[in-house]
Amino acid sequence: MSLDTARGVYVIAPTPFHDDGRVDDASIDRMTDFFRAAGATGITVLGQMGEAPKLDAAEALAIAARVIRRAGMPVVVGVTAPGFAAMRALAREAMDAGAAGVMIAPPNTLRTDEQIVGYYRQAVEAIGADVPFVIQDYPLTFSVVMTPAVIRRIVQDNASCVMLKHEDWPGLDKISALRGFERDGSMRHISILTGNNALFLDFEMERGADGANTGYCFPDMLVDVVRLSQQGRRDEAHDLFDAHLPLIRYEQQPGPGLAVRKYVMMRRGIIASDTLRKPGGALSAVARSEVDYLLSRIARVDARAKV
Amino acid sequence: MSLDTARGVYVIAPTPFHDDGRVDDASIDRMTDFFRAAGATGITVLGQMGEAPKLDAAEALAIAARVIRRAGMPVVVGVTAPGFAAMRALAREAMDAGAAGVMIAPPNTLRTDEQIVGYYRQAVEAIGADVPFVIQDYPLTFSVVMTPAVIRRIVQDNASCVMLKHEDWPGLDKISALRGFERDGSMRHISILTGNNALFLDFEMERGADGANTGYCFPDMLVDVVRLSQQGRRDEAHDLFDAHLPLIRYEQQPGPGLAVRKYVMMRRGIIASDTLRKPGGALSAVARSEVDYLLSRIARVDARAKV
Amino acid sequence: MSLDTARGVYVIAPTPFHDDGRVDDASIDRMTDFFRAAGATGITVLGQMGEAPKLDAAEALAIAARVIRRAGMPVVVGVTAPGFAAMRALAREAMDAGAAGVMIAPPNTLRTDEQIVGYYRQAVEAIGADVPFVIQDYPLTFSVVMTPAVIRRIVQDNASCVMLKHEDWPGLDKISALRGFERDGSMRHISILTGNNALFLDFEMERGADGANTGYCFPDMLVDVVRLSQQGRRDEAHDLFDAHLPLIRYEQQPGPGLAVRKYVMMRRGIIASDTLRKPGGALSAVARSEVDYLLSRIARVDARAKV
Amino acid sequence: MSLDTARGVYVIAPTPFHDDGRVDDASIDRMTDFFRAAGATGITVLGQMGEAPKLDAAEALAIAARVIRRAGMPVVVGVTAPGFAAMRALAREAMDAGAAGVMIAPPNTLRTDEQIVGYYRQAVEAIGADVPFVIQDYPLTFSVVMTPAVIRRIVQDNASCVMLKHEDWPGLDKISALRGFERDGSMRHISILTGNNALFLDFEMERGADGANTGYCFPDMLVDVVRLSQQGRRDEAHDLFDAHLPLIRYEQQPGPGLAVRKYVMMRRGIIASDTLRKPGGALSAVARSEVDYLLSRIARVDARAKV
Repeated sequence: MSLDTARGVYVIAPTPFHDDGRVDDASIDRMTDFFRAAGATGITVLGQMGEAPKLDAAEALAIAARVIRRAGMPVVVGVTAPGFAAMRALAREAMDAGAAGVMIAPPNTLRTDEQIVGYYRQAVEAIGADVPFVIQDYPLTFSVVMTPAVIRRIVQDNASCVMLKHEDWPGLDKISALRGFERDGSMRHISILTGNNALFLDFEMERGADGANTGYCFPDMLVDVVRLSQQGRRDEAHDLFDAHLPLIRYEQQPGPGLAVRKYVMMRRGIIASDTLRKPGGALSAVARSEVDYLLSRIARVDARAKV
Repeated sequence: MSLDTARGVYVIAPTPFHDDGRVDDASIDRMTDFFRAAGATGITVLGQMGEAPKLDAAEALAIAARVIRRAGMPVVVGVTAPGFAAMRALAREAMDAGAAGVMIAPPNTLRTDEQIVGYYRQAVEAIGADVPFVIQDYPLTFSVVMTPAVIRRIVQDNASCVMLKHEDWPGLDKISALRGFERDGSMRHISILTGNNALFLDFEMERGADGANTGYCFPDMLVDVVRLSQQGRRDEAHDLFDAHLPLIRYEQQPGPGLAVRKYVMMRRGIIASDTLRKPGGALSAVARSEVDYLLSRIARVDARAKV
Repeated sequence: MSLDTARGVYVIAPTPFHDDGRVDDASIDRMTDFFRAAGATGITVLGQMGEAPKLDAAEALAIAARVIRRAGMPVVVGVTAPGFAAMRALAREAMDAGAAGVMIAPPNTLRTDEQIVGYYRQAVEAIGADVPFVIQDYPLTFSVVMTPAVIRRIVQDNASCVMLKHEDWPGLDKISALRGFERDGSMRHISILTGNNALFLDFEMERGADGANTGYCFPDMLVDVVRLSQQGRRDEAHDLFDAHLPLIRYEQQPGPGLAVRKYVMMRRGIIASDTLRKPGGALSAVARSEVDYLLSRIARVDARAKV
Repeated sequence: MSLDTARGVYVIAPTPFHDDGRVDDASIDRMTDFFRAAGATGITVLGQMGEAPKLDAAEALAIAARVIRRAGMPVVVGVTAPGFAAMRALAREAMDAGAAGVMIAPPNTLRTDEQIVGYYRQAVEAIGADVPFVIQDYPLTFSVVMTPAVIRRIVQDNASCVMLKHEDWPGLDKISALRGFERDGSMRHISILTGNNALFLDFEMERGADGANTGYCFPDMLVDVVRLSQQGRRDEAHDLFDAHLPLIRYEQQPGPGLAVRKYVMMRRGIIASDTLRKPGGALSAVARSEVDYLLSRIARVDARAKV
């Protein structure tokens, strides 16, 4: 399968650690199995929410290879790096290990349209034009603003660009614009999967997204929302989505959000510990109790939240 | 009443324009009356969401004076300005017109703790130590990050600091920290009202906020959530809040958010037109239909949304 | 004369204050006379280095009108403002008072090419297409990066764009690129005058600049360097420039730089006081002695520095 | 020798590449020998100007080890990394290879005083409290502003902090403030070496700096300026410095600056090629001719520039 026709949910995988900060292989396996059972169509590892910058090179590759071997579905590997030498090294190793493609976020020094387009051109030169890649478009974190026209230029200039991890905010009109480019023939089709913790997944699907590419602690719910939306069951999709929105919003907070995600995944039995590597701390007792309360409210309508 | 004990909802008022961009006085009056009827305890005019930077000096003062005359409750006037001369002029005029206090956001050039503390000291020198002022703490928009310790220094250094418009994100722990400072005696009490379109109002109240200081298109709902929370009716507060959260989230988007707010207020009959001054455009047809859909969903549980 | 053929030195005028912060009209007059005697071909008032954001609206207009009446040469008025209403008001008043044009810097929220081009289009709508305007391109201060192609679009889209205040850094290749656009016929001619305290004036002239648009404390030196360069007397231009470069560099520092400029202008008898309005402090004693030392060194080769 | 009493010039070493982008070991050796012959007292490798982010992990360590073996003087190794795992790995390996210490720049996400202090505390935990480290304070590049009080806290909190690579701009008063802290006993002594391409080295020495920590293409000139200044021969120090200032300024430009540096070092026979790894391009022909002209002008007073 080519990633440019990917649909459904590519889960952004966290990296499970033991309480002492070592990588927890058993939890990686359990988590990978859970994603498959949940109906995910793909997995993305080594993203920001996978704490990729906190891993050393050997750890990063080992995690990617482990998930790839076990997943039974396409795995995208984040290769964002401060320089092209490190990016190339990880990209080639990941592809050799069986990755379906790589994901590249822009460095926060880029400002102009030309700089952004030029960066992706140089990245493709570095990793090789044979490596399928995903654009990560997340201005809130990376401080780089890509217009629809810039994304189109990257897509048209680079045949190996296969997917957009869309997480601009506000971002609904960007999906409409890109799908409009496809309709008017000025841009070939790519897969658009949306992130930003699914905060707008309900309407993103209606605007033309192919699915989700995020790591909300109930990826099984994301799978259902995407499916309901694709089936045209609008009210049901929104009903399910809205039941989770209070927690989605809580988990979407930069900083503590990842701790929330890991805490719920631990409570759900998917990973053994909610430890984050530094920098990045634990949830306060009051924050945990707030998450517990939100889970209890979701559980009234979604049995998965009875944890 | 002194603002440092303010509670309830201080509505952030938009500035209603005619379709051609002129200020719409009749809508200002109708809106002011609506806020009072809705149970607001105060009004804040000339904030970012009041399109203050798009007004000239005469317009700004006229709007403030008009609302002050009619409101029958305390009115806070935003006086954020690129320099102290303009800030002082508007602050003195607003106080002469009967304002209860002024609101000051930091310029986005400030970086260090010292710079932030120093800025508020100079602002107080400029407007006069007799003018009660509100700190606007909104890093997402102003790019200035104030720690709880910095806010404490501003409060302790300036007796005229009476309120915090809290809209940091994530921000729950900041409320807890500031209330902790009050309990340990290291900071005197000020009013903490929360903004950021009420995205976390449910838990902000539980962390110790005195109410809301935002302009969500259903301020009457905010009044109810604040009251329910203050009465300890936790589940009811969350039930009402959660019913609105899909729209709160939609309106909280930077950029189109204000257009959403004005559109709903127009549909509710509060203002005559949803026009924004440039820069700042109209909602697309699809965005309007999305808002309509969200309103229809809210209307199933909150009759106010039958518009 | 039309500004698009302007050459020579348009001095960026500081705003002289009395020691207590009031505007000093007598110093304005003396300074204006000095600029004319020094050989300036134009004056720009109410720029950042004119402390424009620290003035109230009435002060700003009064200063512009006073300089315009006395200058005997074209005067450009800075109208950069947080919103178009205030920009339009000042622009129309300045033109009515006899200004030759206005200068507009972009707000620091702009990121993409489209946003920058769109901003200038809206600004022209606001001030009127009959008002000649100058683009201020100063990324170090305004955080907006304009490529040569973006500047070309602004020039081509707006017939009233007549001049570029070039102060990008590094910026030499930008001048070459813009002059290349003129040669290949893709952009009409505009005046390019360079700022950034003249730190690269020597080579900017050789790359095709028409002169300087900055406020270094020896504008008479700038006039000579521009003239020598235009006469092809390369070594002499560099000799004179290099003699001043240690002080140019010292004055180019953001923050204390303006205090240095005013201090030297006070020592030269051009203005009565080196007071800055807040925020913005006085030079330390050691800094003053460093400037004195630099002046004494310049005085060995340039008699103007014997102050 | 402990780094906290270091004086003189710690040269920031570029990384020499062959024309095809491979690391050039022979040039590394020749460059190392040149630095020693030039009178440097130390060398810093793997900084920003060493293109460290463009190297992979194995290349980085090999370069550090090679210079350390040959230098015959203390070598500081830049270990700035996106995460602590990678930072720790390189720091331990570099120390094992014989480094005198490591250099750490802050990530550009840090804003508040607390965040900066906390980051260095966690970095020390990561690399080990036995590893001497240098603070790199370069807001222009890293967007992190450290007040003198923040630097003092880092110094006082961490016994292994031994040096400040000072390159704030404006920065003279910061040196005075830190030396004042030492005099009043509130901060222990550390070495302060200044960077930012030596743009203010003349006065930095007079404010109390111990020397330079930068890579200007004439490190031998830096050695002389530092010596003259330490001997109290003020005019001679300034005369020599001023002769180089036009080129210092030209090389200090972000972006093309490193290409200028490598070009001159190639012309001087120190390295074989002026190639930069991508991103980062070659000098234009006109830029090269401008550098040639500046060299010819310096050569009139400093024979070293006859290249």
